[in-house]
This record gives sequence, C-alpha cells and structure tokens, in this order.
Amino acid sequence: MKEFSDIFLERRSIRKYSSKEVGETLLNDLLMMACRTSTTGNMQVYSIVITKDEGKKRELAPSHFNQKMITEAPVVLTFCADFNRFNKWCRLRNAEPGYDNFLSFVTAATDALLASQTFCVAAESKGLGICYIGTTTYNADKIIEILKLPKGVIPVTTITLGWPAEKPEKTDRLPLEAIIHNETYCDYTDESIELYYSEKEGRADSLQFVKENNKDTLAQVFTDVRYKKADNNHFSQILLKVLRDQGFME
Amino acid sequence: MKEFSDIFLERRSIRKYSSKEVGETLLNDLLMMACRTSTTGNMQVYSIVITKDEGKKRELAPSHFNQKMITEAPVVLTFCADFNRFNKWCRLRNAEPGYDNFLSFVTAATDALLASQTFCVAAESKGLGICYIGTTTYNADKIIEILKLPKGVIPVTTITLGWPAEKPEKTDRLPLEAIIHNETYCDYTDESIELYYSEKEGRADSLQFVKENNKDTLAQVFTDVRYKKADNNHFSQILLKVLRDQGFME
Repeated sequence: MKEFSDIFLERRSIRKYSSKEVGETLLNDLLMMACRTSTTGNMQVYSIVITKDEGKKRELAPSHFNQKMITEAPVVLTFCADFNRFNKWCRLRNAEPGYDNFLSFVTAATDALLASQTFCVAAESKGLGICYIGTTTYNADKIIEILKLPKGVIPVTTITLGWPAEKPEKTDRLPLEAIIHNETYCDYTDESIELYYSEKEGRADSLQFVKENNKDTLAQVFTDVRYKKADNNHFSQILLKVLRDQGFME
Repeated sequence: MKEFSDIFLERRSIRKYSSKEVGETLLNDLLMMACRTSTTGNMQVYSIVITKDEGKKRELAPSHFNQKMITEAPVVLTFCADFNRFNKWCRLRNAEPGYDNFLSFVTAATDALLASQTFCVAAESKGLGICYIGTTTYNADKIIEILKLPKGVIPVTTITLGWPAEKPEKTDRLPLEAIIHNETYCDYTDESIELYYSEKEGRADSLQFVKENNKDTLAQVFTDVRYKKADNNHFSQILLKVLRDQGFME
C-alpha cells in the first residue's frame, strides 16, 4: 500500500507494463470502488467496456492511432456515456425518457469521466499504472462499431492498465497559481503567461521537443504538430455526427 | 487518515457542513494533488474558481436553483474547461491556436472533470465532505457572468466542500454487472433490466419517493419530476449557445 500523498503527488502515467496479469478479483474490487463515485441524480448513466482479448485490442488499436499501450497493456477500459440502459428501464416502467439531447450527453459523459478518474486513483493506490488515451473522442464512430455500442452510448475516454515496467520522469505542471482563481476569474496578462509558462518552456525535455520538431517555440509544437486546427475541426465534425447518430441531438 | 478501501467504498456525498473552516494550507495541498491529474497532452486546459466570499455564494446560488449547499458550504469550487490561458500562451509564442471547436471543448471539459474527481477523492481521504452540484451545465451562461469567465472558458461542474455535519445513509448503486461489459457491449433485455433495477426499486427510500411524488413507478419520478424532457431540451439549447458564445463552435 502506497503512502497517501504519494499516490496523488508522485504519480506518473505508465505506458510500459510487465507481463504480470491484473487479477480478476483486484480488477473487480477497483471497478466496485469506481462505481461508488457520485453521478447525476444517482442515475449512473455510464458503462465500462473491459477489453482483455488480444484480438479485440488489435481491433481497437487503429482507432487509437496505434498507440502501443492498447495492445501491450493487459487491460483496456473504455468508459462510455450511456443513457441506453436508463432509457430501457424507463420504457419498461411506463415512463417516457427525455434524454435524447445535448445536456443529457454532457450529463452522461460527466458520470463516465468521474468514474474513470476514481478508478485510476484506486488503481494507482494499489501500485498499478494507468495511462489515459485521449483519442477515444477522435474516433468514437469506429470504437462504437468495434465495441458494438448501441444508440444512447458514446465512448468518452479509455485507460490502459497494468503493473508498471517503467518509472518515467515526473512530468511538469503549471504552478498552482496559474490554474486557480479567487472569487472571480483573473484574466491572464502577457506578464503572467510569461511567468506561468517559463518553467515548462525551460525544461530540457521541452527544448529537445522543440528542436526535434524543427519549431521555434514549444507552443508551435502543439499548434503545428500535436493538436492541429485542421485535425481538430475534422474530428469535431465526426464527434458531432456521433452525437446525432447516437441520439443526443434530437 | 481514513482506511483506504473506506474512502472509496464507504463514501457519501455530504450536504451539511460544520462551521469549522477549511484551512488555506489544506485547501492548497488538495488543489496541488488535483493538479497532478493526467490531462490531454499535459496541456492542463482547465481552471478552478474558488468561492469563499458569502456575497459571491449568494450570487451563485440562484444559478444552482438555490441548493442550500452553495451558501452553507465554506468552500465552493467551480471547475472550468479553459482554453483561454493556453490560447494566450500560443499567441504570445507566435503559434496560431486551433482550439475554437467542439473537440477542444470536450478535451478541456475532460481535463476539468478528471481534476475535480481527483480533488474529491483527496478531500474525502482527509475526512472532508463534498457534494457535486450538477446544475453548472444548466446555467453555465449565468455562472460565466458571475465568475467573469472570458471567451474560451466554460464551467462544467461545481463541488461544495466542508467538514461533514451529517452521516447520511449510504445510497444504492446498481450491481457491478449492470455497468460493465466484457469485450463488447451486451445490450440489456427486459429480464436483465428487471434484475439490475429490482434492488433500487425495492428500497424503502425509493418507494417513499414514488409515493411523495404521486407516481406509479420510480422511473416516472425521474422522467416526470426530476429530469424532464422539456427542461433538458431547454437547457441543451442554452448550453449549445454557451459553446458558440465562448468560441467552441467555429
């Protein structure tokens, strides 16, 4: 059992896993913990799809741009906004559900994301390693097909899980003052941006990153290489279509 | 310090708080822990607005339908999707941000929600009580005004925080089998819905709830009283307008 503060302050995302499997009982215990998370009106409008099958992982991999954690991790969990189960219950109980709208998608996505983060903290407290895979919302349409998600269900995030086989360097964070605002939002000046981003920009790994990508600034690595406007626009259209197709834009 | 499994399995949302204040150092420590949470590309595209001022709480209360926790809790935290800070950094570094789209809103909202849940687990591990306030996405437009959130910033969830002055009954949860799916989504039959919802429906508090609301079934309390189609449609339109106004639908 890890020290408490360490779980939060010394955590790293883990992308390399040992061959040791994650036991069924442990996985179930962690899922039970995740499922005690608060949800809107205690509706629990989310589902978790567990992928352990090698073939299924290989099927999922391209939807996550073949990030190797998907096939290398013993367990992949896809957290989904899910009003399908709740709607079915309503209809079986002579109640007409009104959850085919954008607010309901946001409600269900919130339930799913809060449960996923509880899962991660619980897993890390047991010494397991996790990595969030942000590509779930890029290729939700493909993941829906592979995991056979019905109308009312949209995948919102994925985590890979296993016993760590690496101890990566701790990544940087902005100073806390950059994130918090007292009473009202204090908008950023050029000076405060300089102050808050200086440590991040000065790190050896950041400088290396800029050099490798032939850019002038670290920000350009984000805008021109990692998270480009054209890609964001493209995947926004796909995601909005998924919302329509899955019945959240009536 | 609480027992580990208790933090996850024995937690309750807390809606009544003692008059004891939440110390500045403790609050900062918890925020530091929350800010180690994974974010997309380590961009940290979220902000946290801290409300302690009584006047500000009273201003916020109507946006949360006057739920008493807002004015009674010593601390209210509003977690916001925030690309404003990142965009300002990009522009200062000769990089053109492409984050004025729906995918970027979802990315930023995810960052905010995962951080909020880490905060809650950390707070509960110290014996504090929290309650999520789901109304943030209903009245995001009003909250934006009150907290002076600029373009690029949208509030996505709120928590109230304080030392517990109640020990409420543990609420129910669906059995784990209702939430998880192995390899592919196993759609629900009438029989599985009956099975999964029977405990919830049979509870004394559920039966009381149905009776108080003059309904025939618990599901009808949700569809006809608590989360109505007309309200959901109304607030969906407001939320989509907020996304446009705050620059996430270009």
